[in-house]
Amino acid sequence: MASLSDLPIRDDLRGQHPYGAPQQPVRYALNVNENTHPIPEGVARHIVESLARAVLTVNRYPDREFTELREELARYLGHEMTPEQIWAANGSNEIIQQTLQAFGGPGRSVLGFPPSYSMHPIIAAGTGTRWLMAERDADYAISPETAVAAIEAQRPDLVFFCAPNNPTGTPVALETIEAAYEASDGIVFVDEAYAEFMPAGAPSALTLLPGRERLLVSRTMSKAFAFAGARLGYLAADPAVTDALRLVRLPYHLSAFTQAASVAALQHAPEMLAMVDDIAGQRDRLLAELPKLGFRAFDSWANFVLFDGVDDPHATFLALLERDILIRDVGLPGALRVTAGTAAETSYFLEALAELGPGGAH
Amino acid sequence: MASLSDLPIRDDLRGQHPYGAPQQPVRYALNVNENTHPIPEGVARHIVESLARAVLTVNRYPDREFTELREELARYLGHEMTPEQIWAANGSNEIIQQTLQAFGGPGRSVLGFPPSYSMHPIIAAGTGTRWLMAERDADYAISPETAVAAIEAQRPDLVFFCAPNNPTGTPVALETIEAAYEASDGIVFVDEAYAEFMPAGAPSALTLLPGRERLLVSRTMSKAFAFAGARLGYLAADPAVTDALRLVRLPYHLSAFTQAASVAALQHAPEMLAMVDDIAGQRDRLLAELPKLGFRAFDSWANFVLFDGVDDPHATFLALLERDILIRDVGLPGALRVTAGTAAETSYFLEALAELGPGGAH
Repeated sequence: MASLSDLPIRDDLRGQHPYGAPQQPVRYALNVNENTHPIPEGVARHIVESLARAVLTVNRYPDREFTELREELARYLGHEMTPEQIWAANGSNEIIQQTLQAFGGPGRSVLGFPPSYSMHPIIAAGTGTRWLMAERDADYAISPETAVAAIEAQRPDLVFFCAPNNPTGTPVALETIEAAYEASDGIVFVDEAYAEFMPAGAPSALTLLPGRERLLVSRTMSKAFAFAGARLGYLAADPAVTDALRLVRLPYHLSAFTQAASVAALQHAPEMLAMVDDIAGQRDRLLAELPKLGFRAFDSWANFVLFDGVDDPHATFLALLERDILIRDVGLPGALRVTAGTAAETSYFLEALAELGPGGAH
Repeated sequence: MASLSDLPIRDDLRGQHPYGAPQQPVRYALNVNENTHPIPEGVARHIVESLARAVLTVNRYPDREFTELREELARYLGHEMTPEQIWAANGSNEIIQQTLQAFGGPGRSVLGFPPSYSMHPIIAAGTGTRWLMAERDADYAISPETAVAAIEAQRPDLVFFCAPNNPTGTPVALETIEAAYEASDGIVFVDEAYAEFMPAGAPSALTLLPGRERLLVSRTMSKAFAFAGARLGYLAADPAVTDALRLVRLPYHLSAFTQAASVAALQHAPEMLAMVDDIAGQRDRLLAELPKLGFRAFDSWANFVLFDGVDDPHATFLALLERDILIRDVGLPGALRVTAGTAAETSYFLEALAELGPGGAH
């Protein structure tokens, strides 16, 4: 039997291991920031009807322009968005990949602010884009000055922000994004995967789009819409950006099922988003309770909380796993990340963590 | 409003236009080699049931390893295939892209034999892989000697075959693939999108897999399975190859709906494939009838026929479009390509073409 080293794979891939959040069947899966609420029954029924209609013509290629889906996404986003400003793909990962294929690639570079979404450097490598890094301020914030200094020092072709940031939950001020845009002549990409969990009234980078044709704001249906299994990431930007992405997207990249299910879910946005308030409430509970257990919780605007003060993160991860709880060791010293689930899940997690005692398991 | 030229897109994309088979609503769509038969009602019902079950857990990420789908695909392919040898993606296009990301890319090259699948050079460009070309023999055949000479002259990192070939329908002898493999130390990729339409008993390149860890054979559910809208391409190879593809695939690239629908369809393979015989019969009818109308039809083992002797392909394309028939101008001098549809569709097309007179419209 052959092994990887027998194959003529690219030199830069040799010795690498694939991305792998553990796929472990546990009762309390709080590790990949899913929405732990199943979608409401009435909405599920409408989605199934929509899928059943799609099956009737599945022998044909899907609408390559996903016209109806772009219309629904524009309507959902508001801000007078038009369908021409919308792009979608199989998850935010594919949005990021297409963006780097169009604007990055060999001879170009992208600047990120780690710790951030772990796929950013991986997709940069997969598209041959050089990955540059800049440091954050205290508590993982990024001030306008910090962003501008990094851009002026490194002159990247693209700048990636994750707002709120994963895995830290940290908000990114619009002033920082505006300043980064002014300081750069390249693409400024704002990954707003967790935007719906921001406090009411907190403005999205969508409000910055008018007049900024190099600004891209991505979203996903995986989190707020409880649609991680459907793989629908999307992006709002100047219509010229969507034209650029058409040059690199694989034709018919969005299946008829993806389009049908997403359109149906978007038509029920208010019901789908009702869960968001519950989840934000559990996040706030984690933010309030973790300090009482002796941990430091970082301020979060997302559906998860990063906390440190853990003496041995791996031991605590394993001790929780023994209690059927899966959270995430994101590789930050003394820290772990937990997804805000239902009230019951949050209680179970907090009780289990309390049982481990100060500093967690040893 | 901004235009593409206002954006910092890659230099090699400037001035390009996106891939575009026309998306035109017509009664007789015989332009993109779809299976024009809707899927059988009983199968459709089972697929909808499977999708309905998937909706219940769509708040969770899908199985990143698409375990059940790989098992069903291995069972369907036969030849003692194991699930570890199977890989799948959103259409053959993504299979090709992932293959080039793992084994091609900057500094590497891929050799093709045009005219062939038009996406091959486009995806090569999208992954920064140099596209090399070699000439075919008469009537679009590729002899072992021709393949070996091209490989020895150009030393590509990958060799692409399309067997049967699109857009010509030409079979590729297994001797040619064997000889290419021996002559090369790189990847030999055989795109068998149309394999199910080959004559009964014609061997697939799957039979060559044992002992050849650099050989990759791709298939699709778009054609024989009437599943173009579902976007399911797949590949059989040594298990080490699927490990290599894990390094470049975007995590969770196959949605829960894609997995659920494809698994259900594969469980009905015999019913799904019953249409294949009908379609092959209509292809044979096109091969027999087109010469009677004064055209030369190239031998085809696929679900379409390329014919030449057309005085003005674009005029004939438009004249057929006026009659609500969409076929494909593939850019070969004096030639057009038509998909074999139902008996009624084939009759309507042949009658319309006959009405245009010798050499087609002028």
